[in-house]
Amino acid sequence: MICASIICVGNELLNGQTVDSNAAYLGRQLFSLGIPVVRIVAVPDDIQRIADTLSLACSDSDVVLVTGGLGPTDDDLTRQGLARFLDCELYENEALIKQVACFFEQRRISMPQRNRIQACLPQGTEGIENTLGTAPGILARQGDAVIVVMPGVPHEMKNMFEQNIVPVLQEIPERACVVMKRLRCFGTGESMIADRLGSMMQRDRNPLINCTVHFGVITLTITARADQQARAEALVEQDVSYLRRELNTLIFGVDDQTLAQVVGQLLTEQKKTIAIAESCTGGLLAQCLTDHAGASRYFNHGLVTYSNEAKITQLSVSPECIAQYGAVSEPVAGAMARGARARAGTDYAIAITGIAGPAGGTPDKPVGLVYICIDSQEDSHTRRFQFTHNREFIRSRSAQTALNMLRLRLLGFD
Amino acid sequence: MICASIICVGNELLNGQTVDSNAAYLGRQLFSLGIPVVRIVAVPDDIQRIADTLSLACSDSDVVLVTGGLGPTDDDLTRQGLARFLDCELYENEALIKQVACFFEQRRISMPQRNRIQACLPQGTEGIENTLGTAPGILARQGDAVIVVMPGVPHEMKNMFEQNIVPVLQEIPERACVVMKRLRCFGTGESMIADRLGSMMQRDRNPLINCTVHFGVITLTITARADQQARAEALVEQDVSYLRRELNTLIFGVDDQTLAQVVGQLLTEQKKTIAIAESCTGGLLAQCLTDHAGASRYFNHGLVTYSNEAKITQLSVSPECIAQYGAVSEPVAGAMARGARARAGTDYAIAITGIAGPAGGTPDKPVGLVYICIDSQEDSHTRRFQFTHNREFIRSRSAQTALNMLRLRLLGFD
Repeated sequence: MICASIICVGNELLNGQTVDSNAAYLGRQLFSLGIPVVRIVAVPDDIQRIADTLSLACSDSDVVLVTGGLGPTDDDLTRQGLARFLDCELYENEALIKQVACFFEQRRISMPQRNRIQACLPQGTEGIENTLGTAPGILARQGDAVIVVMPGVPHEMKNMFEQNIVPVLQEIPERACVVMKRLRCFGTGESMIADRLGSMMQRDRNPLINCTVHFGVITLTITARADQQARAEALVEQDVSYLRRELNTLIFGVDDQTLAQVVGQLLTEQKKTIAIAESCTGGLLAQCLTDHAGASRYFNHGLVTYSNEAKITQLSVSPECIAQYGAVSEPVAGAMARGARARAGTDYAIAITGIAGPAGGTPDKPVGLVYICIDSQEDSHTRRFQFTHNREFIRSRSAQTALNMLRLRLLGFD
Repeated sequence: MICASIICVGNELLNGQTVDSNAAYLGRQLFSLGIPVVRIVAVPDDIQRIADTLSLACSDSDVVLVTGGLGPTDDDLTRQGLARFLDCELYENEALIKQVACFFEQRRISMPQRNRIQACLPQGTEGIENTLGTAPGILARQGDAVIVVMPGVPHEMKNMFEQNIVPVLQEIPERACVVMKRLRCFGTGESMIADRLGSMMQRDRNPLINCTVHFGVITLTITARADQQARAEALVEQDVSYLRRELNTLIFGVDDQTLAQVVGQLLTEQKKTIAIAESCTGGLLAQCLTDHAGASRYFNHGLVTYSNEAKITQLSVSPECIAQYGAVSEPVAGAMARGARARAGTDYAIAITGIAGPAGGTPDKPVGLVYICIDSQEDSHTRRFQFTHNREFIRSRSAQTALNMLRLRLLGFD
């Protein structure tokens, strides 16, 4: 089967000063072109390491994409690395020197002498025009492999890839048709999902189902490969239908949807409004809801009541209730939600009170204990949770769980 | 010279579903331990590819760090890849099975059968406890190379690395002495800083100064290498002193400090309290302040007043003021801050009102227009900003700018 390698050149990638986003972009692009990536390698600005890595990549890949190291400074060595791998010399290409000079002319700057190196190519390779910068790309062929070298600056790389490289890759025969869909789930663990899916998650299956977790949100990626687009689409749809039946309300959305987005859509559709009263999440839930444009249709009042006094004055929680049960308790969560709903005059209110830690826990009320209440005119529902890990996780999980409770309530499942 | 390779396992890294942040974190850590990274490789969930990549890495690296593929599902194959590379069998380790079982017991869940695989180790290797999840790590030695396998979940990986792996790496002789310090700046642009530093930012200089920007926060990383620790420290300190004089109040903190943390410390030291009234940032500022434990010492009231009505009822902004000047205006920002401070009875209040977009802009009041007010008994100071880019950037920049205004006020510079 046809496959690709990606090589990213630059010391800054290896010492962690830069998080490489080029590789993920190219991985996504190649995947959807039906050319799976089998290796992403970051290497330092070093001629021999670049040459060795090209050699490794060409040993098993049909397409090798390289980014970075095409600048004009002494530590830009990708051209030299490619020349060493191809066992040939660099020469100054006339067409490229005109392109680079033209880039400077348009900006009314005289071309610095050091930029001449950017017009150099290994013998037998082709230059690729860069309309957004001074570093032309390079197209080379070695045996059956296509090697493409692009600049490391993300917008220059993306522009060059989309304009000049995609057409080259589309010419490659034997590409598979690939269709991918993601289902986003909340409210259970990775193991439980794996148990329910059983043999569907086997590695050699088509479609392939992949499972990732981020702050409690589980993403199932269903990827089908086939020789025809319609066939791949049908395979994905078959799995999606099965998963929707099997996982039912655990699935809250598809692709990049967030719980906040889905809840926002439900509130908008049902023309309902919501108020929020937060203690341990300290504004995180309101922030999640307002991350998405259009939140003003359903959200207008958020109260961050971080102290007992604020709960009493802002939410009309009775001091006796706090004294008797403590600020982190079912009765206080309920009183906070009712207070917020009354003040804001909304259809729903969510209240969160808990202990995010690291300090503040007791044997009776350990760090991670959180009460969440959804209050409406019809009913009030408070649940107790014991979250774990650290402050960030407890806060994030609390906000996500509150959104999920509201989602189920709006869908009539709770 | 001693060096390291990093291997990240997971199909999601190769098809671009996940941008790998683990590699950058580990690259930074190894760099500051004096162990430069010569290769970062992302490989698919495939036993043979994992084994081959371990073989390549061990051929020239003294330290090989592996992340990912230790989960309980069928597509987690790093254990098997390591066993194939080491040419030995996996066995269920008694101590590890107790650790994994204990993790479930603490959560009052019976351990799913499939999690037993997480207690399996290749013969001759050691387990590494994971206190935050069910995937123990693995420590192996092959020739002179140390191989460490850690879970891919970032917070589990970081905790395991810092607790268990750093001490192992510190034992390695021949490490260079590397000292790194970061200065965090806010309130100017990257080009302006580059201009002020001039030749200090040259690539072949020791210390090396690197500049990165994230939502307006500029981080200057100063890294010195020397054969002795004291020499490297002195080189860094010399640069830091110069930069502190040159950049002065633009520097708000060091290393990982955030503006919210620094403001929290100042409020705590000065025994002052703060209330927050937010419109366009929708809870983001309160969330930033409460990200850090101990915020209850200075913060107790946050009000997210997303609608005019909420501004009127919750913050006592006069309807006439909103009608005359609009909700996004200097007078309304001031009234919001005064209302919040009066309601909460705090020393300071911050109010933010603006247009985060993408909709809602007009020729007079375009998207990105934001007013921020800091109010105290002594004075009230409102500033107008025109931010650019997208909703996320405008919201984040607004919250950061508000924190920086408060920082300068607390330091007596404003």
